[in-house]
Amino acid sequence: MPREIEKKFLLKNDAWRPLVERRSRMTQGYLASGGRVSVRVRVAGDEAWLNIKAGGLVASRPEYEYAIPVDEARELLALAEGPLIDKTRHFIPAGDLTWEIDEFHGDNSGLVVAELELDNEQQAFPRPPWLGTEVTELHRYYNVRLVQHPYKEWTEAERRP
Amino acid sequence: MPREIEKKFLLKNDAWRPLVERRSRMTQGYLASGGRVSVRVRVAGDEAWLNIKAGGLVASRPEYEYAIPVDEARELLALAEGPLIDKTRHFIPAGDLTWEIDEFHGDNSGLVVAELELDNEQQAFPRPPWLGTEVTELHRYYNVRLVQHPYKEWTEAERRP
Repeated sequence: MPREIEKKFLLKNDAWRPLVERRSRMTQGYLASGGRVSVRVRVAGDEAWLNIKAGGLVASRPEYEYAIPVDEARELLALAEGPLIDKTRHFIPAGDLTWEIDEFHGDNSGLVVAELELDNEQQAFPRPPWLGTEVTELHRYYNVRLVQHPYKEWTEAERRP
Repeated sequence: MPREIEKKFLLKNDAWRPLVERRSRMTQGYLASGGRVSVRVRVAGDEAWLNIKAGGLVASRPEYEYAIPVDEARELLALAEGPLIDKTRHFIPAGDLTWEIDEFHGDNSGLVVAELELDNEQQAFPRPPWLGTEVTELHRYYNVRLVQHPYKEWTEAERRP
């Protein structure tokens, strides 16, 4: 079973920006998000994917991803539940790993989250000086939750992890 | 936008059986079925598909279908909401069209439904003598509904369309 093991962190400052190797603007929405499974459509440039994740909002969960035609993906986005997520993903290589830093736009503007995908939960990983607090266990930072409760609606307390 | 235009009928008798050209055993389940969109996983032999339909239980609706690896499809079936649908689909050619006759097993055993996919809603189609009442507009005959309310639970009134 393909499994995603992903850790999420806030950023301490902007010192990561000069390290970005490439970036990609992404629009995504959820066809289903209520039950045990979320079904996501993502468009990034001229590529698009269907993504299915199961098992709740935790670091390690089954994940399935399939490339689909971008024109069909745009039609599927129009069927999504609630507003779409619009973000720029910045990629920073770190040895065999890659930091993916999501800078959100629109209703989630101001939110920046670093993600790191690991092969297993015990795997060691670098902690660059710009890396902030880990938020892997805080559900409000998951994209599927940002659709319902966008960053612009967060209280001061919610913005302090 | 790919669009499915599909009519559903009951069968008057078994006179269609000698006309079957091929058949395929199918197992399918729904990753999502509550909202505007249903997301279906189907395994038939060594092939499998993800299918997304929108727009309610009507004859004509947007439909998107993507082939996926059968081993992943079997894992996705384990994540489905509610019980799986198990059926044998019988194919009967009819000129440019194909009758697909679904004979259900398990909790839906006893139910047989003929389906015909058309290019547009005005298209003429044959009415062979074994074709029974049209049930396109009766939601209980849709597979997504059979998961929640299987044929074995139908009242006598529900079994008379």
